[in-house]
Amino acid sequence: MPETPPRQDQLRYDTISFLSDYGHADESVGVVKSVIRQLCPAAHVIDLTHEIAPFDTRAGGLALARAAQYVTPGVVIATVDPGTAAVRRPVAVEIGDGAAVLLGPDTGLLAPAVQMVGGATRAVWLNDDRHHLDAPGPPHPGRDVFAPVAARLCLGTPLDELGESIDTAGLLPGVFPISDTEDGALSAEVLWVDRYGVAQLNVSPDELDALGDVFELRLDGRARTARRVAVAEEVGTGSLGLVVDSYGMVAVVTDRSAAGEAFLQTGDQLTLVPLDDDPADAGLTTSVSLTRPASSDGGCP
Amino acid sequence: MPETPPRQDQLRYDTISFLSDYGHADESVGVVKSVIRQLCPAAHVIDLTHEIAPFDTRAGGLALARAAQYVTPGVVIATVDPGTAAVRRPVAVEIGDGAAVLLGPDTGLLAPAVQMVGGATRAVWLNDDRHHLDAPGPPHPGRDVFAPVAARLCLGTPLDELGESIDTAGLLPGVFPISDTEDGALSAEVLWVDRYGVAQLNVSPDELDALGDVFELRLDGRARTARRVAVAEEVGTGSLGLVVDSYGMVAVVTDRSAAGEAFLQTGDQLTLVPLDDDPADAGLTTSVSLTRPASSDGGCP
Amino acid sequence: MPETPPRQDQLRYDTISFLSDYGHADESVGVVKSVIRQLCPAAHVIDLTHEIAPFDTRAGGLALARAAQYVTPGVVIATVDPGTAAVRRPVAVEIGDGAAVLLGPDTGLLAPAVQMVGGATRAVWLNDDRHHLDAPGPPHPGRDVFAPVAARLCLGTPLDELGESIDTAGLLPGVFPISDTEDGALSAEVLWVDRYGVAQLNVSPDELDALGDVFELRLDGRARTARRVAVAEEVGTGSLGLVVDSYGMVAVVTDRSAAGEAFLQTGDQLTLVPLDDDPADAGLTTSVSLTRPASSDGGCP
Repeated sequence: MPETPPRQDQLRYDTISFLSDYGHADESVGVVKSVIRQLCPAAHVIDLTHEIAPFDTRAGGLALARAAQYVTPGVVIATVDPGTAAVRRPVAVEIGDGAAVLLGPDTGLLAPAVQMVGGATRAVWLNDDRHHLDAPGPPHPGRDVFAPVAARLCLGTPLDELGESIDTAGLLPGVFPISDTEDGALSAEVLWVDRYGVAQLNVSPDELDALGDVFELRLDGRARTARRVAVAEEVGTGSLGLVVDSYGMVAVVTDRSAAGEAFLQTGDQLTLVPLDDDPADAGLTTSVSLTRPASSDGGCP
Repeated sequence: MPETPPRQDQLRYDTISFLSDYGHADESVGVVKSVIRQLCPAAHVIDLTHEIAPFDTRAGGLALARAAQYVTPGVVIATVDPGTAAVRRPVAVEIGDGAAVLLGPDTGLLAPAVQMVGGATRAVWLNDDRHHLDAPGPPHPGRDVFAPVAARLCLGTPLDELGESIDTAGLLPGVFPISDTEDGALSAEVLWVDRYGVAQLNVSPDELDALGDVFELRLDGRARTARRVAVAEEVGTGSLGLVVDSYGMVAVVTDRSAAGEAFLQTGDQLTLVPLDDDPADAGLTTSVSLTRPASSDGGCP
Repeated sequence: MPETPPRQDQLRYDTISFLSDYGHADESVGVVKSVIRQLCPAAHVIDLTHEIAPFDTRAGGLALARAAQYVTPGVVIATVDPGTAAVRRPVAVEIGDGAAVLLGPDTGLLAPAVQMVGGATRAVWLNDDRHHLDAPGPPHPGRDVFAPVAARLCLGTPLDELGESIDTAGLLPGVFPISDTEDGALSAEVLWVDRYGVAQLNVSPDELDALGDVFELRLDGRARTARRVAVAEEVGTGSLGLVVDSYGMVAVVTDRSAAGEAFLQTGDQLTLVPLDDDPADAGLTTSVSLTRPASSDGGCP
């Protein structure tokens, strides 16, 4: 127990939000928190999620971007194993002139969130190992770099003492798929399928407004009709709906009886073609199974 | 960082217990905590569980009821997607004249826990959106309603300022299966199978006391003998035991070598018929596999 | 809410680290924290991990030992169901003359961690149930014994008031597999396979230094060549590498494209035979699949 730990209201930052691909099967998340706890007992850690798939920088970046507008101002640790040593440059990215500092690898992981909240105001390469933990082997980025650096930021260590200042324009950009309208049809991508089977697209409601209320969803040569609805409960059995989700993005929903079925997967590319009329009555969808065929690995039902 | 956050000992409630079906795969749980953190930094959040199966109000209600007697007095958020918009009325249910306030959908999810701790003293429909978060899309109940309302309750906002008072008798009741004795046999249901393969029944030890020590367990036309034992270790290899679990309910256990096998499943309906004698020696159970047959989806071994 | 809870800086210990095999599917972890919260609101709980496989004392002991050097001084709860009542003696093991106290079953679970940090200075059998919770059924070790005892230790209750003092030499030792060199070959065991497919061995880099840089890995009659590398990225496609991991132990890695494949499993016994030369060029490994054959349950590719 520290003799005289600083109180929470004496900290520069009092909250560390933490996102990773560590999973919960082992002690990794707990060890990072233990390191923080010993260096800065008054800092409060909020787990955003630790179940980003291993190496999945895109999924981690999107989860962080979705969370960004809700994250408590302070320090954010986001770490997803980049899988290649070449890009393992740990960085600190300041936003809002110090409102928050994001720590993570310079792999584009932080980029969508940084963009979401107004862009970077400063950045530092965390290469001053006086602020890191000594490791019994090669440094573990979360445990030996991000955890102690987060604690030190909370305690008031200035950003520019943590390493070499770098040009924010030189940070690796995030890969965020852009939707595109061509010949009146909208090319989109599934960003995320949530636990309830709702498939968020990289499409804003405005983009649909210009096109209509009923669409043919095309994916891998197959097609389904989808109608814009207010809530998933308005979707008929075996049908598809297009809703605005709680993040303000367009999402594909099925009727609830089909939730959880692998209808769309993260990363699926699809095209939304406006229909003048709803062809559902004409039986166009009747012979189409809602379930992804077992033999296909990317098909649309 | 708030300029002058209230200290924990100045709060009306200082603990928010949180149960949901959000899972850990995405940032949902973290976002709810982030919202609470910003509105009431001194509130402490305890995760009860977030792995209730999606839409499973019954399982969520039972988990909350099991936890109820241990939950820290304060605010409780319990949210499981009801799956149908019709019942998505967010409510606050006060118990013990203010000892605690439970927040959740009016779907019966809260009812078993409320009953367990003495019943509701007041209830409010959380329909005053001045206390909610503005959402970029349709409100997300946990993030935009329950989180800010929980924070405000901690900060001292009176319950009746959060929405319209409703009759506690009008809250949707929980569905809790009742055991029943008829012709000397006990009809029971599996409430929950824990991680160690222990199947809790909706049966109290008193109910068994009146019937005896050895029972035939009947499920889907098949039968097994089960003997009351003090601990699972007393169960012979390939046999079944009936123990009192740490919640004080009767549970079916196998010998530990079989733990984890799908012997009974949540929701299984079974009958316990008292036996005068233990027929195990007569070989009645010898040809019965302990494992649920692969072709059956609800059978008793 | 307690009337006058002690502040964190008035506690004997202020942090409780918590490892278990409870999983996250139910409310068990939350209930333990709720009990602690009510008895000692100022204590801070850090989850190390709760996904130790049920009954897996070895895996729990190894995870605790890996975490040990990072765990915050204070109280540690480690509980993995021993599966047999005979060894269910709950104990408190003091280390560093009171720097920390580990609570758990006397099953060897605590032993590797205790050894890692210098050995036990005192031990107590937690058999004074005045410090336990009354249970509605048989006591639940985490909820009814370890949680209230942890809270009381934080509040300053002396260790020897919690039960009968026992000889630290009488605690059950941990089972930690020892590597062994015979006829110039090293017999080793896989301690742990992490989320990224890295298989930690019970081998220190020193042991390899004495033998060379290139080895034949033998497992169940099959063989693969593995070369010492600094980072996994140096491993060629389809090849194996031997790295020092962030805990300072030797680990087997594949090239990243194969990460996550079931190449080695926890508990696998293997032999490392030094090779003078790297036979990879001679095609020795070309016909060997990197993936564990479906029909084998312990084979090395």
